[in-house]
Formats: sequence, structure tokens, C-alpha cells
Amino acid sequence: MVRWLRSIRTLRVLWGLAALGMALGCIAPSAPASAAGENPKYVFLFIGDGMGMPQINAAEIYLKSHPGQAGSPTIQKLALSSLPVQGMCTTYSANSFITDSAPAATSLASGFKTDNGIIGMDPPKKKRFVPVSRMAKEKGRRVGVVSSASIDHATPAAFYASVPSRKDYYDISRQLVDSGFDYFAGGGLLQPKGKKGDQPSSIDYAKEKGYRFVDSREEFLKLRPGVGKVLAFAPRRDEDQALPYALDGDGGDVSLAEFTAKGIELLDNPKGFFMMVEGGKIDWACHANDAAAAVRDTLAFDEAVRVARSFAARHPKETLIVVTGDHECGGMTIGFAGTQYETFFDKVRFQKGSYQAFDAKLAAYRKSHSPKDARLADLLPLIEADFGLTVLPPGRKAALEKMAKAGDRDAKGRLALALTPREQKLLEESFVASMNPESLKKGDETAYLVYGGYEPLSVTLTHLLNQKAGIGWTSYSHTGIPVPVFAEGAGQSLFQGYYDNTDIARRLMGLMGRSPVAVASR
Amino acid sequence: MVRWLRSIRTLRVLWGLAALGMALGCIAPSAPASAAGENPKYVFLFIGDGMGMPQINAAEIYLKSHPGQAGSPTIQKLALSSLPVQGMCTTYSANSFITDSAPAATSLASGFKTDNGIIGMDPPKKKRFVPVSRMAKEKGRRVGVVSSASIDHATPAAFYASVPSRKDYYDISRQLVDSGFDYFAGGGLLQPKGKKGDQPSSIDYAKEKGYRFVDSREEFLKLRPGVGKVLAFAPRRDEDQALPYALDGDGGDVSLAEFTAKGIELLDNPKGFFMMVEGGKIDWACHANDAAAAVRDTLAFDEAVRVARSFAARHPKETLIVVTGDHECGGMTIGFAGTQYETFFDKVRFQKGSYQAFDAKLAAYRKSHSPKDARLADLLPLIEADFGLTVLPPGRKAALEKMAKAGDRDAKGRLALALTPREQKLLEESFVASMNPESLKKGDETAYLVYGGYEPLSVTLTHLLNQKAGIGWTSYSHTGIPVPVFAEGAGQSLFQGYYDNTDIARRLMGLMGRSPVAVASR
Repeated sequence: MVRWLRSIRTLRVLWGLAALGMALGCIAPSAPASAAGENPKYVFLFIGDGMGMPQINAAEIYLKSHPGQAGSPTIQKLALSSLPVQGMCTTYSANSFITDSAPAATSLASGFKTDNGIIGMDPPKKKRFVPVSRMAKEKGRRVGVVSSASIDHATPAAFYASVPSRKDYYDISRQLVDSGFDYFAGGGLLQPKGKKGDQPSSIDYAKEKGYRFVDSREEFLKLRPGVGKVLAFAPRRDEDQALPYALDGDGGDVSLAEFTAKGIELLDNPKGFFMMVEGGKIDWACHANDAAAAVRDTLAFDEAVRVARSFAARHPKETLIVVTGDHECGGMTIGFAGTQYETFFDKVRFQKGSYQAFDAKLAAYRKSHSPKDARLADLLPLIEADFGLTVLPPGRKAALEKMAKAGDRDAKGRLALALTPREQKLLEESFVASMNPESLKKGDETAYLVYGGYEPLSVTLTHLLNQKAGIGWTSYSHTGIPVPVFAEGAGQSLFQGYYDNTDIARRLMGLMGRSPVAVASR
Repeated sequence: MVRWLRSIRTLRVLWGLAALGMALGCIAPSAPASAAGENPKYVFLFIGDGMGMPQINAAEIYLKSHPGQAGSPTIQKLALSSLPVQGMCTTYSANSFITDSAPAATSLASGFKTDNGIIGMDPPKKKRFVPVSRMAKEKGRRVGVVSSASIDHATPAAFYASVPSRKDYYDISRQLVDSGFDYFAGGGLLQPKGKKGDQPSSIDYAKEKGYRFVDSREEFLKLRPGVGKVLAFAPRRDEDQALPYALDGDGGDVSLAEFTAKGIELLDNPKGFFMMVEGGKIDWACHANDAAAAVRDTLAFDEAVRVARSFAARHPKETLIVVTGDHECGGMTIGFAGTQYETFFDKVRFQKGSYQAFDAKLAAYRKSHSPKDARLADLLPLIEADFGLTVLPPGRKAALEKMAKAGDRDAKGRLALALTPREQKLLEESFVASMNPESLKKGDETAYLVYGGYEPLSVTLTHLLNQKAGIGWTSYSHTGIPVPVFAEGAGQSLFQGYYDNTDIARRLMGLMGRSPVAVASR
């Protein structure tokens, strides 16, 4: 009896040690998932679209920047970049070193690679993949899908749909409803009535199938547990049915963090939940080479991660948070040829709206001015107001220099934002191009390299401001460099190391005792 | 007695479990070094100068590229990027988000930040820092410092010298000898007789102090344990006293891997060793935006890591290998605006020599041709031979198209390397600039952005080839993005997570039971 008791005690000690080991992240880096026997009840997968290390680091630097900055450089880690475990993953698709969001999200959701453009299916489009979100649902968990892009966009879609083309928006919206998942929130639907607008509305279909549909801030905030399945659109959406850029936000918006917090409130239940949250417009800002918009959307995404972390702090042993990007976008970096070893992130703060907001103002000017009547001088006050960039006439320059001498830091900053003759020439050329859009021939190699198909004046303004801040770009598309992964909570150590994006899904599945599954397509 | 025995047995089981935990890397990510009680006898610190994730990933892609490449993208992990533990660190210096190699190496060696340009001292230059290499020596270990740059360059210097300026080459070389470290190998000395060449030779000083000096391949290979302290220069060195680019190497060179292997052979002893190995010219190739040279030097650096890994395989419990970069350089990325979602790494293989080797050929042409007589056409055959890039006259184009049709993959590749009219114009302009160097005014903003102070024709050729391969650059300087860290062996788990470059030195010191030390300057 005594002996038996002692054995029990020994076992307890051993078990305690093992548990301690687990808590400390005691799993060999290459250990297969599930080896630890961990099965977190609450799983968050955060995907920053187009968010590589440059985007994260730019946001970290931005948080500590201020006008007229001097002194030692310092960064402020984000909620996401201060998670205790850090890994890195390759992002290439089945047919390109540079992936698009469809195969990237497919890898993260299902553990299989596919070709660019395809969601949740193999390259021959004969099999469909079962996403980890479906497996969670099968385990009795509630499932939420949240995005600041339209909710039928490639990244969220890979968690509930399988389609040959990411552009099959109507099919995607039908599969959204058919998924029966519990919480869809963020942007709207791009083609709720089909490509030609002649199909039955998918929003009506959702309501028929028991979804509560809301698209106002008031209704959204009133949603309470027990409401059942929810389809929630942001009250204010851009022409792509996405949330406005955080930089262009106003008080009437519902933020990504609010959509995440409501998701937690509605999904929480004894069987747990799986929630995917996408910061979708970091990517779009980077396509346009707009650092200010990208940084602010990265910070909005980070606020959503913060919400999950505060939930995890209340359920530390039962929660897993994984944060990654699906790929980098723009070839962004902290360094530009013209600024060499210096950076001036405080300059980014002079930008008051996204390139998109400026596009709208420019369109209004173009509407009221013929190319003949158009003068760059007309727009200089607006350019200074929105980007801080100035073409200084001698008098104004002298006035600012006087103010700067008297210690006015803002004046100092504005002087540093005065355009050089080379930069003024680029600005003038882009203004002419914006006023004469027909002059930009399709397929013109030089025009594409300079403007990337964007509004010439807007993209030139973000380029000039970014370059003055010491931020460089190489592309208007995604890039192929690996992206970081951060993790916290039960099973966190599985996400340490350098692996492939498919391994993220495989490890999440492993925690539920599952493996990737491909089935014959319907 | 039985009870006592049983306790012993229990303790043994507990101890076994704890040891297992350690072997599996069971330390909380934020745990202070030394907590594990690990103290590896053999420590390797590999520093790829200018090597961020883009450089590593480019080399991984390059290894699987071949002419006329088709099919699924795939990478081959390097020896360094397949180490089991992966972390990431910030690199900023005490006065700039973009560091130079002096404060970066100071951080990695001593655990303190300092200003750009300073080695092993605080910004006011009143204190000197004690590097981890010195602490290892104090513990009775042998110490080796190896670099493919000159051995008095900033990165190696930070492991044995403290100087107010990285340009104090003569002082550095004296401190090298005074260090009494056991093995210095790689590049030569930049000013062995001082700035004006009027000081006593530091090479003679080394010999006086008991160093065996060798600078031929034969003598080097003959070095055997017991030889005593060694100062070994590469037999063939460039004008900067560095090893030739791996891309320009010949059979008479001693490679970085050979310097590393010999270091292991000479340093191995019962008390262990500390060895720092720098891949110094990855950085220089990236300054010049030469991807082919950067990739090949990254692979040469990786061969040195492979040598250490094979030593570690024989001493797994006693060896620690840590690999990192001191900063990224060039703002390199896998993606360029003109190639959008495609990459063509096979094209990089057409480059047969570094920009530096081409500079020499161009200088010879300039010597024999006045600007008036110079014709780009004269150099086109050389350009095609060295970079694959072609300005195809109609006849040659037709011939290649015929060969390509017949299945000639090389012809296909060369067709893809034909320059577009836009690219031909850039080439022509750069040729004129190279033939008329006086036309490039110092301080000309545009000229710097386009050529970065490099030989205009050479840098234009690497830019054009890189862009056709889908590789972009944003700067001729370093950049500020965090760099990866990889580790294997005793204490490996200390290097997981996202931290600062100073933490690498602090954790290495912690493994020896030491902390960073700053002392009043001599």
C-alpha cells in the first residue's frame, strides 16, 4: 500500500515535470504535431495579407517615430511580434516562387500547395481540400472567418470554399452559406447576385439558411451570444467591398479589432472555437507602394491580435494564437538608395490619407479641369496638406527657415519635405500623365515600371514621401521571400523553426489529431 | 537502505527526464542564458555580412535553378538554414536604424550597441567593451577569427579590438597581435605599416610575438596542430585585401571552408575553442547589387557552416553553432516590378564573373579606346559571354529562334536574355557614362540613384540581369530589416524568438556564466 502510494507520488512528480516541460515549450523543433498531446480549445489564426517582416518592422519603427525625431533609434514591438515563439515559412505556390493569395491561403488552410489563382483545389482542379476550419467544425467547435477585405476574397474563402478560380465570387458566396460556419464578418460580397447580377442574392440565401445579417454599426454592436449564425458587413465599405483603410477611417466604422472581439463573444462555448482573422488591406496598400497606409493597416491588424491575446490571457492553457503573413508584397524595405544609411520615419506621419483617398480628390479635379486648364500649382496646397511634400517658393522657404530657427519642429520637418529639382520633375511628369490618362499606352514597359498601373500622381507622391523616409519598394506585386510566424499558447512550440506554409495547416490539424485531406471534387 | 536506493532511482529518472528536456531544447524562449547550465566546449559564431533572409532565400532558390527551368518551384535549404533552431534579431545601431558593420559586429561580439563607425567602444569612446572571444580565452579556450574580408575589417576586428573608428586599420592590426588569440585567417591587412606606410610592419610584429605567418596555399595546408599561433592570409587577395569573390575563384585559392576546417584542426584541444567565421563579401556584392556574386559568396559561406556542422556531428553534446547576418544589404528581394509574379533564377547562372571582374575588363578597354573611339558594339560579345545579355541583331535572333524551336534550351534562355529597347537605352547611357567618368558630377542625385558610385556599365549589367531574373534592389547601402538567426547544438534553444543583436553576445556569454563588460578605455 505504501509502496503503491509512493509510485503514485513518483508518477505525479514525473507528470508535473512533463507538464512543466510542455508549458516551457518542450518539444523538439522538428517534432510532428500532436506529439505533445496538446489540443487547444480556442484557436486563432491571424493572417496579415502581404505582411512580411518589412511591414512588421516598419510598423514597429513607426510607433516610436515623432516629428523632428532625434536620438537613439528604438522600436516598439507589436502585440503580434512580441508573441513568445517565432518561426519563418516559405510561401511559394505550386507553380510560382511568387504566390498569390489564393494558393497561399489554401496552403495555410488545408496543408496542400496549389497553383496561383486556385482556392482549395489541386492544380488539375479534380480534388478539393478540406480546410482546418472544417475539421474544427467537425470536432464540434464553432468557426469564425473575419477579414478586412471582402469576405469572399481569396484568403477568407480558402477557409470555407473550393473553387477553380478565385474570381468565382458567386460560387464562393454560396459555399460561404453552405459551410454553416458560425460567424462571417468584415467586408461584404463582391458579386452577391452573380457576375451579371441576375442570380438569387447570396445575402437572401444566407438569411434563408438561418444567418442573421447586419451591416450597421448599431445592429452589429447589439449582437449577443445566442443570436445564432451571423453574417456581418462593415457599415462603410470601399468599392471593393472592403473596410476603409485604417488611415482613412472614421468613428462610424467597425474596426477589425471590433469584429474580432465580437467573434470571441459570439463563438465562445464549452466546445471551443476556431477563428481566422485576415488583415486584408496591408497587401493592397503595398501593391500601391503606400507605406503610410500599409503601416496603419498593420497596426489595425495588430489591434485585433491584441484582442485575442487578452482573451488568451484569461484562458492560457486552452488557447493557441498563430500569426503569419501569406506572402510579402511590394518588396518593401527599410532603406533607399537616396537616403543611404539614414531613415526618417517621422515623415510618414505627414501623410493624412491613403493613395485611394487622394485618387478620389484627383478625380474630382480632373472632372472640373480640362488637360489644358490643369496646373500642378492648383494641387500643391492639397499635396502639402495630404503628404507634407512641398515645392517651396523662395518666400515660403525663408519663412519656414525662420520658424525652424526659432525651434519650430514642424517647420523643420516641412523643410525636410521640400522636393528637390529631380523630385519636382517626377511630380510634374506624373501630373501630366494623370491629367492625360490616354497618354499611358497599355503595355508600355517604362510607364508600368514608374506607375504600376496606379494613378500616376498618387503613386509618385507615395514613392517620393517613402523615399524621403528611407523606405524602398521593388515591385507592385507580391514577392517570394519567406515570412515570419509568431505563436503563443498551447502548442506554440510547434511553430518554431523554418518550414513551409503548408506546415502551418498541418500542425494545426495535428493538434486536433487530423491530417490533410483531399477528396474528389463535387 | 531500500528506501534510499529507491530515492536514488527516482532521482535518476527525474534527472534523465530533465536531461531529455534539455536535449529537446526545453528552455522557455525568454529564459536567461546559463539557466540551462549548458556550457558548450566548442562554439562557432558564423556571421554573413550583409546576409538577410533575401540573400539566404536567393541562394536556396539558385541551388535548384537550371537553364530553361520549368515545373514546380522548389528550394534547397542551405546547411545554415536547415539548422534546427531559427530566430530573428533587430540590427539597428545606437545612432541609426541602418547599422554599419562596426556597431553590428560590436553588438554581436560584446552585447552593447554603439554608433556607426565605432568598434568595441561606447559612443563617447570612453569605455571599451570586452568581446565574448576574450571571455572564451580567459576561460582557457583557444580562439579563432576567420573572414573572407581583410582580417582587420570591422566584423572580425570587433572580436579582438576596440577603436574609435573602423578605419584605424593600423591600430586594429596591432591589437590583433596583442590579443594573443590563436588563429587569424582569411584576408590580409589593409595598412600593415600604417596609413602612410611608415610604421613598423604588423606582420613582423606578429612574427616577433610568436605567430606563424603563411600566405601561400602550400604552407597553409601544411599547418598542423602544435604549430602555435597562426596568422594566415589567402594566397590571392583583391585590392581590398579580401578573398576573391567565389564567382571569380580559381583552384589556387584557399576557400572560407578550408580556412574554417584548418581552424578546427588547429584549435581543437581539451579545453575547447571559440571561432568566429565571417562571410564578408556577401555584403560587398550586395552593395554593388550583384546577385550572382552575392549568391555564390553566400554558398561559399554555407560551405564553411557545413564544415562546422560535420565537426558538431562528431561532438553533438559539446558544440554550439550560431549563424546570423550583421544586417541586410542592398534591399534585395525576390520580386521586381517588371517581372511581377514570375522569377527566372536560371538567368543568374549566365553571369560568369563578378561586377568587379567586369570592371577590370572595362578598364582595359577604356585604356585602349578614347571616348570618341569607344563603341558599345565592341563590348557586346564580352557582355554576352559574361552576363548572357544580348542586343540581338535580326539575323542572330532568327538563328537562336531556330535553335530554340529545335529544343535547344540554352538558345531559349539566351532569347529570354535579349534586351528590350528600354533596356538597350539604359545600357547605351551607362556605356557613355563609363567612357566619360568625368561627366558624372559628384553629388548628382540622379547619377547616384542610377549607378550608386559604381562603374556605370557594370552596375547596369547586374541590374538588368537581376531584373530579368526577378530580383529587385532598393539601395547601395545596408538596410534596417531584422535578420534571421539559426542555431544547433548545446544551448541552441536560447537563440529562438525575436530579439536584438546584442542578445546574441549576451546569450553566448551567459553560456560561459559571464555578462557583458565595459571597462575604462586605455
